[in-house]
Amino acid sequence: MSRRSLHTPAPDAAALRARLDRAAKAAAAADTDALLIAPGSDLRYLLGQAGGSFERLTTLVVPADGVPALVVPKLEAPGYADVPTAELGVEVLTWVDGDDAYRLVADRLGKARRVAVSDFTPALHVLALRAALGDAEQTLAGPVVRELRMRKDAAEIAALRAAGAAIDRVHARVGEWLRAGRTEAEVGADIAAAIVEEGHTVADFVIVGSGPNGASPHHDVSDRVIARGDVVVVDIGGPLPEGYNSDSTRTYAVGEPRDADVASTYAVLQQAQQSAVDAVRPGATAESIDAAAREVIDAAGFGEFFIHRTGHGIGLDVHEEPYIIGGNTLPLEPGMAFSVEPGIYQPGRWGARIEDIVVVTETGVEAVNTRPHDLVVLDA
Amino acid sequence: MSRRSLHTPAPDAAALRARLDRAAKAAAAADTDALLIAPGSDLRYLLGQAGGSFERLTTLVVPADGVPALVVPKLEAPGYADVPTAELGVEVLTWVDGDDAYRLVADRLGKARRVAVSDFTPALHVLALRAALGDAEQTLAGPVVRELRMRKDAAEIAALRAAGAAIDRVHARVGEWLRAGRTEAEVGADIAAAIVEEGHTVADFVIVGSGPNGASPHHDVSDRVIARGDVVVVDIGGPLPEGYNSDSTRTYAVGEPRDADVASTYAVLQQAQQSAVDAVRPGATAESIDAAAREVIDAAGFGEFFIHRTGHGIGLDVHEEPYIIGGNTLPLEPGMAFSVEPGIYQPGRWGARIEDIVVVTETGVEAVNTRPHDLVVLDA
Repeated sequence: MSRRSLHTPAPDAAALRARLDRAAKAAAAADTDALLIAPGSDLRYLLGQAGGSFERLTTLVVPADGVPALVVPKLEAPGYADVPTAELGVEVLTWVDGDDAYRLVADRLGKARRVAVSDFTPALHVLALRAALGDAEQTLAGPVVRELRMRKDAAEIAALRAAGAAIDRVHARVGEWLRAGRTEAEVGADIAAAIVEEGHTVADFVIVGSGPNGASPHHDVSDRVIARGDVVVVDIGGPLPEGYNSDSTRTYAVGEPRDADVASTYAVLQQAQQSAVDAVRPGATAESIDAAAREVIDAAGFGEFFIHRTGHGIGLDVHEEPYIIGGNTLPLEPGMAFSVEPGIYQPGRWGARIEDIVVVTETGVEAVNTRPHDLVVLDA
Repeated sequence: MSRRSLHTPAPDAAALRARLDRAAKAAAAADTDALLIAPGSDLRYLLGQAGGSFERLTTLVVPADGVPALVVPKLEAPGYADVPTAELGVEVLTWVDGDDAYRLVADRLGKARRVAVSDFTPALHVLALRAALGDAEQTLAGPVVRELRMRKDAAEIAALRAAGAAIDRVHARVGEWLRAGRTEAEVGADIAAAIVEEGHTVADFVIVGSGPNGASPHHDVSDRVIARGDVVVVDIGGPLPEGYNSDSTRTYAVGEPRDADVASTYAVLQQAQQSAVDAVRPGATAESIDAAAREVIDAAGFGEFFIHRTGHGIGLDVHEEPYIIGGNTLPLEPGMAFSVEPGIYQPGRWGARIEDIVVVTETGVEAVNTRPHDLVVLDA
């Protein structure tokens, strides 16, 4: 017998009801009879509870027209006790071992032409639903739901601000732990503990990239011993109890940097990050933000050392829409939230990255991270 | 930029190679051209690394006949650096944004009639693979892979023993924290910390079901204040760094139990659990183990209060095959590992459960949990 805890703070019923209504309208607009939402961030967005993904089917049926229903195994139903289903107008349909849960969903939908499953529905259920739904075309609900989730309401933006403040408090303390003679893993463990102390439910990721490891954007931590003169990329974050994530990077130096090119290169990076943030406003495209950072770095001759996109959306997931990348012509709108995190990576020597989460406002931009952007030179 | 740590201890290459060979043979036996294994426990079983499930496709292609290939985004490839791909005879095919990863898989497979995706592959990839693979029938790889994973090798059984010993050490310390006047949540937080201190990577689940909450098998923790005389179900576990999970339940009393029926009822439960464990041997069916527990409880007149199956398989997942439940006629074989965890639940008053993980041996059974089965009466 085991189950992860499902009890978590949730938005109020009015906010959830508005989201369910918008989801139904979006399904209709996409010519889709219903969305089938599996446990995960999409479910948390619509019901206030992420649920858990197990071998038994749980799905929220959101018809384009009609009453939503939460189909859930009877044993797991207590995990949804905090969901105000009556206020939300959501019927709860429980099933027990021996019932055909897929048939239950199919009967609920009746004759459907197109039914969308959420992007992270396990294959186990995807294939069984397809069989049960016969002739209905099976599509992904992700494109429908992300149109909603991409546009944050006031409560979501407040939650992102709280997450930003929490991770800023951790960055403010990095000097307590990051010192020559310690390994990245030791420093990372201290940072992970602080991430939880500062209010996150878990330290979802901790990157401590020292010296040459800083030049690998997806490095996490290693047993490398940090040396005097190292430049160190610290990229950290996790969810607060409300489910919204923090994600912020600062670059540190342990004593004065060993490499002579650090100061001038870092100045370019800082200018690129600021240029991208300054470009954020309603109507600007996602790719124009990427371009704003890239142009500064290219112009300084470091283009080949900036090897990833400029940012990713953030909310209930650490990575979600909108992606700040060349080719994404999405016009930004108030309420969109994403990272702005250019980096410059000198293979085999050092790397640097600056990352803030920003929110598009009615007139421009608000950064939820407020730590200074300068290279932080610590005592070695 | 963020990524969960992927670096974890892995079995040796010879063991992994044997598993890959068995997987290919099992695919052939199932008349399936290839298995497509997504990040998760199945991937960890075959490559020694679970990977991470992100928006970009990662899949291990295991053809029934031919060379296996790991298809992975170039940015995420460093996470698989510890996999001995050369020794395993696994080709690594990296792709970058802009490439069609699904086409890469389809080209690798050529003309296929039937291709199986692992059970927890996200719908995002399931639907795109289906489109790329055209006429090929899409099935689930779970039934193929679980035939392998259900039969543990010596290293896996050793890992389960280590996990059992670790959670036994936590149960041995429960008296330090479980006292009248504290909430379930407070006790649970202490237990969670001890689960990690005793070597688990995370406290995956912590159930502290006191008094009436003990009568709800899927309760986790609450703000209920534990009172003198309460019976308390403590069901706890998590993975060790090698990935294998612990899961053990003991029932405690905070001072002498308040309810007069506890001692006699608990004696029945203890006899039922022992009867089920004693029935475990090669050739016995999974359902016969369930029946052994249920008969004792039924005979004592408590049948209606034993409201779940007797057990579940365990390994890299906390819940996996074989399930110990009526209707499962699977004959047990040496190397199978599962929980034996009958419970008796008195609604509104108290509940009790005893859970050990056991392994089928050549001649009978070995329990990896060795704490006494008696009701543990603590100082209040």
